[in-house]
Amino acid sequence: MSMEEIKSNPSSRKHGDDILPNIHKVASPPKQTLFQDFKHNFNETFFSDDPFAKFKNQTVSRKFVLGLQSVFPIFDWGRGYNLKSFKGDLIAGLTIASLCIPQDIAYASLAHLDPHYGLYTSFVAPLVYAFMGSSRDIAIGPVAVVSLLLGTLLTDEISDYKSPEYLRLLFTATFFAGITQMALGILRLGFLIDFLSHAAIVGFMGGAAITIALQQLKGLLGIKHFTTKTDIISVMKSVFSAAHHGWNWETILIGVSFLAFLLTTKYIAKKNKKLFWVAAISPMICVIVSTFCVYITRADKKGVAIVKYIKRRVNPVSASDIYFSGNYLSAGIRIGVIAGMVALTEAVAIGRTFAAMKDYSIDGNREMVALGTMNVIGSMTSCYVATGSFSRSAVNYMAGCKTAVSNIVMSFVLLLTLLLITPLFKYTPNAVLASIIIAAVLNLIDIKAAILLWKIDKFDFLACMGAFFGVVFHSVEIGLLIAVAISFAKILLQVTRPRTVVLGKLSGTTVYRNILQYPKAEQIPGMLIVRVDSAIYFSNSNYIKERILKWLTDEEILRTSREYPSIQYLIVEMSPVTDIDTSGIHAFEDLLKSLKKRDVQLLVANPGPIVIEKLHASKISDLIGEDKIFLTVGDAVATFGPKGADL
Amino acid sequence: MSMEEIKSNPSSRKHGDDILPNIHKVASPPKQTLFQDFKHNFNETFFSDDPFAKFKNQTVSRKFVLGLQSVFPIFDWGRGYNLKSFKGDLIAGLTIASLCIPQDIAYASLAHLDPHYGLYTSFVAPLVYAFMGSSRDIAIGPVAVVSLLLGTLLTDEISDYKSPEYLRLLFTATFFAGITQMALGILRLGFLIDFLSHAAIVGFMGGAAITIALQQLKGLLGIKHFTTKTDIISVMKSVFSAAHHGWNWETILIGVSFLAFLLTTKYIAKKNKKLFWVAAISPMICVIVSTFCVYITRADKKGVAIVKYIKRRVNPVSASDIYFSGNYLSAGIRIGVIAGMVALTEAVAIGRTFAAMKDYSIDGNREMVALGTMNVIGSMTSCYVATGSFSRSAVNYMAGCKTAVSNIVMSFVLLLTLLLITPLFKYTPNAVLASIIIAAVLNLIDIKAAILLWKIDKFDFLACMGAFFGVVFHSVEIGLLIAVAISFAKILLQVTRPRTVVLGKLSGTTVYRNILQYPKAEQIPGMLIVRVDSAIYFSNSNYIKERILKWLTDEEILRTSREYPSIQYLIVEMSPVTDIDTSGIHAFEDLLKSLKKRDVQLLVANPGPIVIEKLHASKISDLIGEDKIFLTVGDAVATFGPKGADL
Repeated sequence: MSMEEIKSNPSSRKHGDDILPNIHKVASPPKQTLFQDFKHNFNETFFSDDPFAKFKNQTVSRKFVLGLQSVFPIFDWGRGYNLKSFKGDLIAGLTIASLCIPQDIAYASLAHLDPHYGLYTSFVAPLVYAFMGSSRDIAIGPVAVVSLLLGTLLTDEISDYKSPEYLRLLFTATFFAGITQMALGILRLGFLIDFLSHAAIVGFMGGAAITIALQQLKGLLGIKHFTTKTDIISVMKSVFSAAHHGWNWETILIGVSFLAFLLTTKYIAKKNKKLFWVAAISPMICVIVSTFCVYITRADKKGVAIVKYIKRRVNPVSASDIYFSGNYLSAGIRIGVIAGMVALTEAVAIGRTFAAMKDYSIDGNREMVALGTMNVIGSMTSCYVATGSFSRSAVNYMAGCKTAVSNIVMSFVLLLTLLLITPLFKYTPNAVLASIIIAAVLNLIDIKAAILLWKIDKFDFLACMGAFFGVVFHSVEIGLLIAVAISFAKILLQVTRPRTVVLGKLSGTTVYRNILQYPKAEQIPGMLIVRVDSAIYFSNSNYIKERILKWLTDEEILRTSREYPSIQYLIVEMSPVTDIDTSGIHAFEDLLKSLKKRDVQLLVANPGPIVIEKLHASKISDLIGEDKIFLTVGDAVATFGPKGADL
Repeated sequence: MSMEEIKSNPSSRKHGDDILPNIHKVASPPKQTLFQDFKHNFNETFFSDDPFAKFKNQTVSRKFVLGLQSVFPIFDWGRGYNLKSFKGDLIAGLTIASLCIPQDIAYASLAHLDPHYGLYTSFVAPLVYAFMGSSRDIAIGPVAVVSLLLGTLLTDEISDYKSPEYLRLLFTATFFAGITQMALGILRLGFLIDFLSHAAIVGFMGGAAITIALQQLKGLLGIKHFTTKTDIISVMKSVFSAAHHGWNWETILIGVSFLAFLLTTKYIAKKNKKLFWVAAISPMICVIVSTFCVYITRADKKGVAIVKYIKRRVNPVSASDIYFSGNYLSAGIRIGVIAGMVALTEAVAIGRTFAAMKDYSIDGNREMVALGTMNVIGSMTSCYVATGSFSRSAVNYMAGCKTAVSNIVMSFVLLLTLLLITPLFKYTPNAVLASIIIAAVLNLIDIKAAILLWKIDKFDFLACMGAFFGVVFHSVEIGLLIAVAISFAKILLQVTRPRTVVLGKLSGTTVYRNILQYPKAEQIPGMLIVRVDSAIYFSNSNYIKERILKWLTDEEILRTSREYPSIQYLIVEMSPVTDIDTSGIHAFEDLLKSLKKRDVQLLVANPGPIVIEKLHASKISDLIGEDKIFLTVGDAVATFGPKGADL
């Protein structure tokens, strides 16, 4: 009952069983058939972005064009493409190519591969993505974390990473990573990757960065015998046991000086955003200068490890290398699924970030199909798992890319590199590659984000730290597992122990609010108002019932001690209760029974559409009494509360 | 801003940036230290029933007494025990004993055990429970479903159920079932059993009843070679392949006629609640009459299978039989955990049902410790897993039991039975035991409950049917697994795809409601009001953001087509949002960016205590603008909406 009504009609104000005619009653939603209901829920779950909307009321030929554009967005944005856009894309493409070439060579070593596999991957994958992907800013290619993950998982299966089986298993894993990504997209299960929370990713990435950086001590210090494990303890043992004889001082000199150079350029770029290109081209400068120095001084004769040999050829076909049967098939699938999911998480996070910056929309599921196709084709052309790179995408964005054409430009530069200049990398020292990796992965350690997690949500911080320490002290898989487990525990806790709060009235209004948040809110004599802040499901129905009864008991003790009138009415505010299942209905029945024994009447305020329907279907509404179900708490108080309490 | 304020002060009504002084502002809750916060959440999760409240401010000796009473409630209620109560308990105890003896003998066969193990279990377990349990109505002993479950799981490990290893594994499983139950109680993890939803239990119990009844065809038809599998297809094959030669007509005559008698007494008891004892003693009558008939006619010579031999002795000690090492240890633990959880679910469901009827409270966690202790002691005294029996508890209740003393009475009757009359069961035909089981388990098929599930919640019905068909067509474990998986899927779906609804204003009020539920609710020109019905977590933050933007796009198209003013303000009503994590904060940031591009301003209504704190901690509140956070949707509309829209 609204305030207006009461004021204009004060004589109608009565107590007890005489119910006032409230202006508005709790309404049931329009009836839907089971099929409509199911269709609606199904669409909301799997097709919430309504991807087929634009196909409606179109001719067949138009539908074909639209379908083609859906699968290959390049036919959509390509028509409006002009010289101005190309200028932006060309500069961006050249910039990311110069950053990408040294990174590719370096990252390949994280996966225990020869350097040209990194270059192969940066040639084919971006080309495929440019035709099918919908992000305009992402830079596609091999990334550090996925390379490390693959390296670890693959050596667990085949420890001899020089053997041809290792390479075959790599392509198998890449193939199934692609299939996994495609399947998630086609089956509209893209939302599954949301279960890897932001907090978990921050921790995981930070841990992976530390792990990768530690691995580089091998190259940076010129150590010959190094552990194959990735945890910090094994690595530090390796480093110190090699200290007496294994460290090569020439290597350290090269590594440390170039690392200093890279970090300086990074710092400059950070201070002055316009100079981002300084940091972007510095790895290439390092490679050129260091290669030249080594070639001149023949430092490789003094124990400085060099790349030695890179094939000058484009990607050979590797489709026949993929295992479709045999012992390694299941390992390939397992590794592929893990690597595919991690790669997807990274690419989707990047896509979303830049899409929000420029306010265009990314269809997550279509994006997954694009990335999946890219990796399936990659697995057949000697590439390994590619995805979006955080650092290169940022450079791409800052260099003014307009569309995915910048990826095509990069791809062509890579093609030329493969055909013409790869032999020049022969004398590139491994130490400089190590410093490039270290400088690159330091970006992945996001201390600010971790501090923000601590400030905002302690549970998120826990997930973050769990992932971080899991990766650093054990392995990438364990880190992932811990992060996912903590995230799930959080969800389960939410649905098992939802919040119930006692409401009070804000003076001079008909607004009822949590008395803990608004200490001035006043309780109504003889009434207790409780709000349930969650859907009532089997996992929490019993807790909610017990908790409401406990509020009642506690309040009764409190009020008796203060000689307030005892509680006659319990108002349950159900606005936030989106759904109730049969266990919830049973809990309601039990609550009614207990209240009856205590001589307390139950009033219900604002049940939602699904809840009111279920209360009716289960006939609980008859047990409660239709006249005890109200549109608002205010109405319930106006009808059954003490005189004047609703004002 | 309340209506009163506006009316009394109409000149203060302005638009745009001049903000009206609202009476109440969104408040932050009182600051809590991290430790207070953690302590509160920890207590709410594990000690929500506040079990230590009564220990506060007590002397040490009083604390000792209270502690003793906590562990052994018999010392609490025992002091007020009188002759009148004993009369009720005596009659109830004798009634359930007469029902229990034939059931024990029969249920033991479901677990492939000799009949006396059922009787042993009904002697020790109720005695222990009477001292430690807090339910007054439960009847403790072996039950059909757990017996079947144990029989199936144990024969999967040791197919020769005549071997001593089978018995040792049984005691091992019983021991670990008890340990599991105790551990759940002591660690306050009792809420875990809530994850087996009511719907899943209905389906599981129904399926188990069908399975058990089908198994009885062996005894009822006198088939000698019978499958050890429990699925309906294997069993029916066994039955029909034995049709030509394996059916024994004398057995069928005994079985069918006594089954008819049992079902008739059941029907009478159902029609007239006062005659419940007719059904309760009928199994005993069947056993006595059939045993006498077989003894007189020597029908066992004509192929009627009989019990043959029951030892006359009380429980031998079996503690040394439990495997604490070796191959069978892990199997014992696994089976124990499953059986313990299932047994717990049954006992807790019974305890809660009768506690709600008589309005006394059951401490779930303490109850688990009691049941666990009972099974641990049982495993050392030749008992197998005992729990509360639905049918016997109902008889106990109807016979007028007052306390757990009825269980003590039953236990003594069982003791006398074991010492004196067991040899008399020698000629009891197996067929009559089969009919007792069939008549008993038919109670577990709750078609009404299944229909109600269908009416109230289709997803619950799905879980129910999944469990049912899983049990009937495969095995009890698979049925359990399906039910748990479907229940979890439901929870995950809820947290992944929460509801967002568009609100409209109910005319003549300041109440805003879902326009789908209240089609008469009117939207405000130039504003879109969306309510988010869930905590915003990593699993749904992106979906919620996208969904809100989709509402905005859809509404804009709709309003443009109707030539309504375009949307300038998006009001997000956050009352139901109990929590927001860092992913949610990021989604909010992205939402703000997208809205900025569209020239739409974001207004926030009624953020809860945790949400407002996190909005402040993350500085998002500055991005939104403190003046754009309102106590109610009405306030937001009054401040920024078109003139008169808030009335």
